Amino acid sequence: MNLYGALEAGGTKMVLAVVDEQGTIRDRISLPTRTPDETMPEMIDYFRQHPVRALGIGCFGPLDLNPHSPAYGSITATPKLAWRNYPILSVFREKLGVPAELDTDVNGAALAEAVLGAARGLESCLYVTVGTGIGGGVIIHGKPVHGMMHPEIGHIPVIPLPDDPMPRGICPYHGNCLEGMASGPAIEQRWGVSAKELPEGHPAWELESAYLSQLCANAMLSFSPEKIILGGGVMQKEFLLPMIREKTVAALCGYIVHPAVAAGLHDYIVKPGLGTGSGILGAFLLARQAEKRAQGS
Amino acid sequence: MNLYGALEAGGTKMVLAVVDEQGTIRDRISLPTRTPDETMPEMIDYFRQHPVRALGIGCFGPLDLNPHSPAYGSITATPKLAWRNYPILSVFREKLGVPAELDTDVNGAALAEAVLGAARGLESCLYVTVGTGIGGGVIIHGKPVHGMMHPEIGHIPVIPLPDDPMPRGICPYHGNCLEGMASGPAIEQRWGVSAKELPEGHPAWELESAYLSQLCANAMLSFSPEKIILGGGVMQKEFLLPMIREKTVAALCGYIVHPAVAAGLHDYIVKPGLGTGSGILGAFLLARQAEKRAQGS
Repeated sequence: MNLYGALEAGGTKMVLAVVDEQGTIRDRISLPTRTPDETMPEMIDYFRQHPVRALGIGCFGPLDLNPHSPAYGSITATPKLAWRNYPILSVFREKLGVPAELDTDVNGAALAEAVLGAARGLESCLYVTVGTGIGGGVIIHGKPVHGMMHPEIGHIPVIPLPDDPMPRGICPYHGNCLEGMASGPAIEQRWGVSAKELPEGHPAWELESAYLSQLCANAMLSFSPEKIILGGGVMQKEFLLPMIREKTVAALCGYIVHPAVAAGLHDYIVKPGLGTGSGILGAFLLARQAEKRAQGS
Repeated sequence: MNLYGALEAGGTKMVLAVVDEQGTIRDRISLPTRTPDETMPEMIDYFRQHPVRALGIGCFGPLDLNPHSPAYGSITATPKLAWRNYPILSVFREKLGVPAELDTDVNGAALAEAVLGAARGLESCLYVTVGTGIGGGVIIHGKPVHGMMHPEIGHIPVIPLPDDPMPRGICPYHGNCLEGMASGPAIEQRWGVSAKELPEGHPAWELESAYLSQLCANAMLSFSPEKIILGGGVMQKEFLLPMIREKTVAALCGYIVHPAVAAGLHDYIVKPGLGTGSGILGAFLLARQAEKRAQGS
């Protein structure tokens, strides 16, 4: 049986899995993210015990994904200092001796949603996770978007609402970017209560859905994905999605004439089709890509 | 000699050209845009007199570019009522009997810049024209982006500056979207003088460059093009580009660590490499695509 290695590398934990050709997870473990010196040998050991044909890594960022760059395959300006400038891709390639591919965790998740999940059969989608941070992955023409660097859509500026008790956000870089205004920690800072504990009907959710609708309208107007998928801890509040759809329709002011808008974006702004599995299945798809690339093209 | 038809269809005028395989324009005329009943026969006559292997059309929008839609190839919700719901692509295909392809004028221009102009050799770029309106075309993975509809990046919301004497913009749909705040007519409405007559050093340009830098930062963070190309009448003011670069670097607040940002975006936010020729050469490239598609794939 052909097996593939999948690594969802997060700032807090590493999820490692072995996946078969059909996309069924055969084995899976989770390790705390410590320093590269401590955590890399543990991960390499795991994949040596489960021989895989290729490895895919969906990783916290920012990353250098420019194949022409000397730092290609490294984690770059992360606040997790021990991992800054760490060449994660080349270390895995060298130690495991199999083809490996790296992308952002959210591009991986977006790829999984485009191939296997809520955007299956489409050529493009935006996947956003709203939690401790806000990150987004973009698929266009069937492939993850890198471009100059890679999407960092959590950091687009948002327009503060007049009744926001915290009109300056908490992002240390941008203040009132989306992450600074609408991430879990921003909600907690604004209301003194964790997002999880805030009930339906609380004014927090009016603001939250307004800021996330700015993201959706912005994406629709700028790169026009065929589906927007919103996941992550904050989106566990099921009442949020309809509020975001409604405010996105309102923000477009009738400018985009399209059946999806006329239908209230009900099938357009959606939750992940793969639940919390998008990340690890994205890493699996990256492993498949790595193998294909090594085989031929 | 193989000749290709190129049509740059604008709301005010139609530019028609015959282009050879090398991309040299062999003949070119311009017609006023009247109604389809008046203008279509004139255009069809022109291309019948200059037999072409295929036709490419870069057209004012919005357009229906979804090949699965019954209205594929039509102009949709344009304020130019005579052209609303006009099936421009199928009429040309039928009357001329050659392969034809349609895209937005700005996607055409973006394609020309990516293949022949300022973004030559790159896989992605954003082309924006700042004039009577603000429109943008997007190339990713070497191909124009349509997605759900097509980019309408002129209508992304911008954050009004505190010293803007016209904090509500003039867009009939969105008020303070980019077009409502930074198009030629918005500048004229705000200052009572046409953009052309406003001198360097006028406060108008501080605002203008700030709003356009919001667009640039937004694009860099959301879909991360490898080059941003700014054209159109307003951008004829040569002093604007350095102001926009500087404010974009400032807006990113050090978040994007990349050599292009470190270099002040000097080679990243640029003017069109093809001058005012991007539009018609984009239509030529669409004609080449139409021929290729008809031949094989």
